[in-house]
Amino acid sequence: LKVGVLGSGIVGRTLAAKIALIGNEVTIGTRDVEQLLARTESGPMGTPPFSVWHDENPAVHLGTFGETAAYGEIVMNATAGVASLEVLTSAGTQNLSGKLLIDVSNPLDFSKGMPPSLTISNTDSLAERIQATFPEAKVVKALNTVSAPVMVDPGAVGGGDHTMFVAGNDEPSKARTSDLLKEWFGWQDVMDLGDLSNARGMEMYLPLWVRIFGVVQAPFFNIKVVR
Amino acid sequence: LKVGVLGSGIVGRTLAAKIALIGNEVTIGTRDVEQLLARTESGPMGTPPFSVWHDENPAVHLGTFGETAAYGEIVMNATAGVASLEVLTSAGTQNLSGKLLIDVSNPLDFSKGMPPSLTISNTDSLAERIQATFPEAKVVKALNTVSAPVMVDPGAVGGGDHTMFVAGNDEPSKARTSDLLKEWFGWQDVMDLGDLSNARGMEMYLPLWVRIFGVVQAPFFNIKVVR
Repeated sequence: LKVGVLGSGIVGRTLAAKIALIGNEVTIGTRDVEQLLARTESGPMGTPPFSVWHDENPAVHLGTFGETAAYGEIVMNATAGVASLEVLTSAGTQNLSGKLLIDVSNPLDFSKGMPPSLTISNTDSLAERIQATFPEAKVVKALNTVSAPVMVDPGAVGGGDHTMFVAGNDEPSKARTSDLLKEWFGWQDVMDLGDLSNARGMEMYLPLWVRIFGVVQAPFFNIKVVR
Repeated sequence: LKVGVLGSGIVGRTLAAKIALIGNEVTIGTRDVEQLLARTESGPMGTPPFSVWHDENPAVHLGTFGETAAYGEIVMNATAGVASLEVLTSAGTQNLSGKLLIDVSNPLDFSKGMPPSLTISNTDSLAERIQATFPEAKVVKALNTVSAPVMVDPGAVGGGDHTMFVAGNDEPSKARTSDLLKEWFGWQDVMDLGDLSNARGMEMYLPLWVRIFGVVQAPFFNIKVVR
């Protein structure tokens, strides 16, 4: 399977590395490939420069946003929420049309300090904005409720006994996403919340997530729906 | 202990009955006592008229909002979020001053249909508005993230192995609330999220709660923070 991962930060790298490791072909998309590879400074959280990471993950291809979206049979949006619509626009409507677009992003606003608020919430969601902007894409919201390492290795937290949510308007695309979450990463409990408007719930959980993170002081946690 | 519970709906009744059952003195506060007792119609969710419930729970006293707040050594806000500030104002600033005020409410807006959105969110919370309006009260946010039956009987869900959050500015009041949650109801895992601004996370979880409720189709669930 050819997967295009938009975004070269921790989330994009983590997803790309794992999806490639288990036998898929993966391209990471970035705004300017040369500029990304030329960077030598670490990221804000001590993230190593992309080139250092890429040397350790040579199987992952690198391309522009447009090249990456065109390449992927499935496209994943792993960009910062505030940039997602612009990135997807530069990726090209025609390169997303008819494809499963797994939206992992969160509309976090760090401009007023920590903890972040949301740039979109309550009566709308980033996932719905993306779907409205790219009506031919099959947007499924998933994975945005956990940190990058937990996305690809749920078993590292409580043996994997916790919950992932999905929401989307296209039932086959959502079912496929649920299957991929299980096959690729080992998710055991995937809860389908319904159509994409339910991404509001998934995105509005983030303000609680950042506060639990503040208590746990580590990215290795998630919530389990106990019934 | 004398506890004043503001609100005569399912949440107020459930809290009052349980807190009285275990040996405290409890008054439920309502706008107009005679009017409440005169009602014969059931509530929107099939809730029995208050008088029917009260006949089965005669140990619980009944008073106006002001009488109830004056009565309580601890006051609990179990009113609908959209009415909370008005109710607390009619309860009287002087009757809340210096007291632990446990805020159980959620700023849910049902006016646009289901699922509800929030009337306050993101960069503010109902709990903070209450604290700002009643600066002498010691507001602690708690219990708003679960249904009424789970509030008072967490053991009914997964043996009680799930998480309750608290937030508040006054550390002794918050510690006391955590103790009461354990003593009164049997909560095992109470996570202190910090000052009252963290109530934003607790209230913004509600849009996810209502969607999980839509899947589970029953009020007996909660989330557990798995580490």
